[in-house]
Amino acid sequence: MIIMLAVDCMGGDHGPSVIVPAVLEFLRQDRDCSAILVGREEVIAPLLAQAEPALKRRWSVQHASEVIGMDESVASALRGKKDSSMRVVANLVKDGRADAAISAGNTGALMAISRFVLKTLPGIDRPAIASTLPSMTGHTYMLDLGANVDCAPEHLLQFGIMGAMLAAALDHEERPSVGLLNIGAEDIKGNEVVKRASELLKASGLNFIGNVEGDDIYKGTAEVVVCDGFVGNVALKTSEGLARMARTFLKQEFSRNLLTKLAGLVALPVLRAFQWRLDPRRYNGASLLGLRGVVVKSHGSADSFAFRHALEQAAEAARQRLPEKIAAGMAAALQHIGPAPTLCD
Amino acid sequence: MIIMLAVDCMGGDHGPSVIVPAVLEFLRQDRDCSAILVGREEVIAPLLAQAEPALKRRWSVQHASEVIGMDESVASALRGKKDSSMRVVANLVKDGRADAAISAGNTGALMAISRFVLKTLPGIDRPAIASTLPSMTGHTYMLDLGANVDCAPEHLLQFGIMGAMLAAALDHEERPSVGLLNIGAEDIKGNEVVKRASELLKASGLNFIGNVEGDDIYKGTAEVVVCDGFVGNVALKTSEGLARMARTFLKQEFSRNLLTKLAGLVALPVLRAFQWRLDPRRYNGASLLGLRGVVVKSHGSADSFAFRHALEQAAEAARQRLPEKIAAGMAAALQHIGPAPTLCD
Repeated sequence: MIIMLAVDCMGGDHGPSVIVPAVLEFLRQDRDCSAILVGREEVIAPLLAQAEPALKRRWSVQHASEVIGMDESVASALRGKKDSSMRVVANLVKDGRADAAISAGNTGALMAISRFVLKTLPGIDRPAIASTLPSMTGHTYMLDLGANVDCAPEHLLQFGIMGAMLAAALDHEERPSVGLLNIGAEDIKGNEVVKRASELLKASGLNFIGNVEGDDIYKGTAEVVVCDGFVGNVALKTSEGLARMARTFLKQEFSRNLLTKLAGLVALPVLRAFQWRLDPRRYNGASLLGLRGVVVKSHGSADSFAFRHALEQAAEAARQRLPEKIAAGMAAALQHIGPAPTLCD
Repeated sequence: MIIMLAVDCMGGDHGPSVIVPAVLEFLRQDRDCSAILVGREEVIAPLLAQAEPALKRRWSVQHASEVIGMDESVASALRGKKDSSMRVVANLVKDGRADAAISAGNTGALMAISRFVLKTLPGIDRPAIASTLPSMTGHTYMLDLGANVDCAPEHLLQFGIMGAMLAAALDHEERPSVGLLNIGAEDIKGNEVVKRASELLKASGLNFIGNVEGDDIYKGTAEVVVCDGFVGNVALKTSEGLARMARTFLKQEFSRNLLTKLAGLVALPVLRAFQWRLDPRRYNGASLLGLRGVVVKSHGSADSFAFRHALEQAAEAARQRLPEKIAAGMAAALQHIGPAPTLCD
């Protein structure tokens, strides 16, 4: 089966100059994929000139006259720009011409456009943003990371199902473990929303392991960690801030004087190996889950290596028919939990 | 002025064997302080036997027959054990016999007992837990870290005032900057509670700099970061988890083979300097704010060095009469904000 990726070439800090070469490199590496490069043709075409002839049958360019700015409001992106590259990639998925959409643009706009164009899956009230984080035992999927700031227990249940299906699809695992982010392991901890969500998750038929705490994200206690978008966004950005500070301190200490610089030279291969294990580029690609189609958001600052990782994730999610799996997972959980009243009280 | 510290010697993972020597070392270092060592006399007394005579006038032992377990329920700690070491230190502060209470015991029990014995300050609905975190520019105070899971905007305002007074007292700064933890810098971001809290903080007369995001904690964008206890606890524990993982990875990479071990040996002084900058022991001591008395919670696993830091913090907060400053700050903010309706809607 050929997987067709619709790639927004105009988003992100670097735009086509990084994205187009990343797509070409990805096509070389994954021979089962093809790509539609979307954006200003006059910018994209020259970047394709040097691609080897063998690749030529696996990409096409679709012109889109408008670009959504990184700081543009959701309203203006959604209503004002009908021919934006972001809108076009979503339309390509909707029309069945592509299996997945990838963009490094404005997250809020991508979420709004995807939701408007593709619609949510049956049983899903709100799409969520899921990302992968490194852990002591491999990696952890976490959601929501900022799409939903005020969540009801039912939303957290839906996130649990979506996260479990994402982990199942990307890691080819049957029953990934799901934990609910809380401030203590005991059932009595947390606020009312979390307590009720815990009950729903217990009844859902998922492999729910109960409450987990902040440090469990990196311990790898659960394969999927569920939380509302406010908490998830804070946890993610706090982690980014701490990692940046630690990197800065490490650099500062190694460049303090000639002696420490020499020590740094000796330790360089080890420090590189260490950095590699925490390299956020290896985890680039946040999934917009709960939509009738695969949409992956790359970090705006992604380089070619990182963008390729987002493409890989999108291709795998499409190959595994993730949206269908989420819909099926949702239906199965509702059957477990029982009649609607439980979900609508 | 002599500052009298009431120290719960029975709390924490190590109990008197670490705490008593830490107190003695602290008394040697800060000649303006005295201490009441509270707990089982038969355990504490032998540990004091070797203390030099010059110190003897600066400590006394107060027997307390009961100990609150690290996992004991708040109800049992509060109602069942009237002669616990934790209860006795709180009573000593209440009776004016000590200027501050310090315990490495069970946080929930310490909060409940302190609140019950000491009561909250006028204008403060709920005490909060504040801690210090390292930042690129020095350190950041953050609260609440878990005492309050469901906060109204008024509570976040109170946390802002308490945090500002804490920073003012410990750093001797006049108008420390206060930021509100949110998921975006713009005013329109976040949930309803945070939006309303932002308005109150703006009107409070504090040096409020607006919304900050998770990474700002470590950037040092604001000297005080305010959030509800659920979010704060997750941010803190997520940070602990990430730091632990990074330390483990670094150790693993340096012990991979003979060559990396040699590199580690060469880099050891630099790595130690790096670790020192992030060493959580240097930030040990969480303040229970909003009470009619100074109460400081040490980490349960604190060693002598870390416990001393908690003692230093408690002494400085007492010296600066932190509770009185918080009460005054609260009154001033209410005057700025205007009549009560704003705070009670």
